[in-house]
Amino acid sequence: MQTNRRLILASRPTGIPGPENFNIDVREALLPDSGEVLLETICLSIDPAMRSWMRDGTGYQQGIPLGEVMRGGGIARILSSRAEGFSVGDLVQARLGWQTHPTLAARFLHKLDLNIGAVQDWIGPLGLSAVTAYFGLRHIGAMRPNDRVLVSAAAGGVGQMAVQIARIEGCRVAAIAGGQEKCAFVLNELGAEAVIDYKAESDLSAAIGRACPDGVDLYFDNVGGPTLDASLEHLRKEARVVLCGRISQTHSAQPYGIRNLARLSSVHGRMQAFLVFNYHERYDEARTWLAARLRDGSLQQKLHVLDGLEQAPVGLGMLFRGENTGKLVIRLSDWS
Amino acid sequence: MQTNRRLILASRPTGIPGPENFNIDVREALLPDSGEVLLETICLSIDPAMRSWMRDGTGYQQGIPLGEVMRGGGIARILSSRAEGFSVGDLVQARLGWQTHPTLAARFLHKLDLNIGAVQDWIGPLGLSAVTAYFGLRHIGAMRPNDRVLVSAAAGGVGQMAVQIARIEGCRVAAIAGGQEKCAFVLNELGAEAVIDYKAESDLSAAIGRACPDGVDLYFDNVGGPTLDASLEHLRKEARVVLCGRISQTHSAQPYGIRNLARLSSVHGRMQAFLVFNYHERYDEARTWLAARLRDGSLQQKLHVLDGLEQAPVGLGMLFRGENTGKLVIRLSDWS
Repeated sequence: MQTNRRLILASRPTGIPGPENFNIDVREALLPDSGEVLLETICLSIDPAMRSWMRDGTGYQQGIPLGEVMRGGGIARILSSRAEGFSVGDLVQARLGWQTHPTLAARFLHKLDLNIGAVQDWIGPLGLSAVTAYFGLRHIGAMRPNDRVLVSAAAGGVGQMAVQIARIEGCRVAAIAGGQEKCAFVLNELGAEAVIDYKAESDLSAAIGRACPDGVDLYFDNVGGPTLDASLEHLRKEARVVLCGRISQTHSAQPYGIRNLARLSSVHGRMQAFLVFNYHERYDEARTWLAARLRDGSLQQKLHVLDGLEQAPVGLGMLFRGENTGKLVIRLSDWS
Repeated sequence: MQTNRRLILASRPTGIPGPENFNIDVREALLPDSGEVLLETICLSIDPAMRSWMRDGTGYQQGIPLGEVMRGGGIARILSSRAEGFSVGDLVQARLGWQTHPTLAARFLHKLDLNIGAVQDWIGPLGLSAVTAYFGLRHIGAMRPNDRVLVSAAAGGVGQMAVQIARIEGCRVAAIAGGQEKCAFVLNELGAEAVIDYKAESDLSAAIGRACPDGVDLYFDNVGGPTLDASLEHLRKEARVVLCGRISQTHSAQPYGIRNLARLSSVHGRMQAFLVFNYHERYDEARTWLAARLRDGSLQQKLHVLDGLEQAPVGLGMLFRGENTGKLVIRLSDWS
């Protein structure tokens, strides 16, 4: 029999989550019922949205009940199948949960086309972070060539894709990241024209002014709070602000008050949040575009890889402390 | 000769503007040059945007230099014409300035069709406030039948039109206004389903919750500040916030900090400002719609009329103290 190791949500974090919020649980993997498959998890994606799932309340998705397996997406290999069209050895993307051997209904699986990209590509530049950056820039941000684009958390999973997609589309891209290593990565590897190390700046607005002397047409915001507020001061006429993430506010005791909305009014700008799942039927459009840029070498994604299921809670903590450079991934088994 | 009385911007206000910021100046009216007309002002519209024109800085329009005539729109009658297609006696709408007898280039004039509406209609329910409400709700707010709509400053020039347009389009409309008289007007004459007297409420968010028990799909904001912040708490999924005005913030010493942007993110909502002049080529669409509703009696606009050019600065002060019920208009000559 196959055993399934699972990470169970044991307590709700008050601050940054970590291993103390989880219990490990080992049990027999479930044999697939009709329409189901048994999977072996290859890797798990660690994303900021996970923090909100650990709360008791309701967001666009319900919180995870205590005692249940932690929710999370990733890539897996089919070990056994009782579902038509799904064969042993197929690779799939799914909301697997933090477990080594999930058994899932096949209708929740998305089969990976390895002609388009390898496993690392599907968790990276073809994954949901990349698709989020794509639709956020194009549809919510109405990106146009020559736009002055500013991206925060630019070394993160979504941010690094946003920087590159905007650059490939002919925008002038400035970026905000924390620390020398991330800033060098954003400038030298992702191709941003200017970078701001927010940890080294006492006056973020002035730094944005230097990096974006002509102002900002499109601000792709992954952090919220004071960074959003400072960015608003530099909006150009009819600017668009894409509210993608607000990681700076996830653990703040009380919400930061945004003071510069007057600027949004005076430039007749727009500020919009979105749910990438609403673009579900158009993921292929994004992936076709991304795969072509991957093939011609204009697009890359740096992964920050931790090995072993038990590293998932560690990775989640690193994410909220800003310790990762690149998209955070937990690798459970060989993916080459 | 015709004399032209003019109100000259003499000083920049620090708080709410009033007569002390203006000088009166009497001079001979200019004879029209080729392509120009001499006008007699019938009425002037008093609008919140005027306050920003009195500043030294630059917004979407330059500030008015000290010593020049105050900027303002209104309706006038042609006294003498040297412009083809413009005849003595024609009524026109234009950026007249605060003066009794402006001389203007005909290309800046919009001739009024009195078959569509009388002078009071053209300054009121066919005027720019109404057109602003129309495009704000439809294009920026993406209004749909059955939307739960909330309108602030609902007894004001734009607000009263927004309440009625949304109601006519089949929305459930709740409104915010200040004082019993305005609230009664909004409820009994404009047809809002619920009204909140913000001056009588210690907890505005709770009051909005009672008036909008199912939340808000579209918030048409004329005031900004704490009212905007409280409204954000009640946004429904994919809500739209139309940033039309921010009169509560015009004279605040320092900008209020908006704390509830997290709600905009979690409902995947949109917040957007706009410039009605960008819809210039489509004003006729709005006016055709508005005129039809005026004819069938479903639309009205209450005017708050003050008589005489010298009342213009008084009216501007009333506007910012919230002392007007209805759209503020200065009448200079008989308009019947």
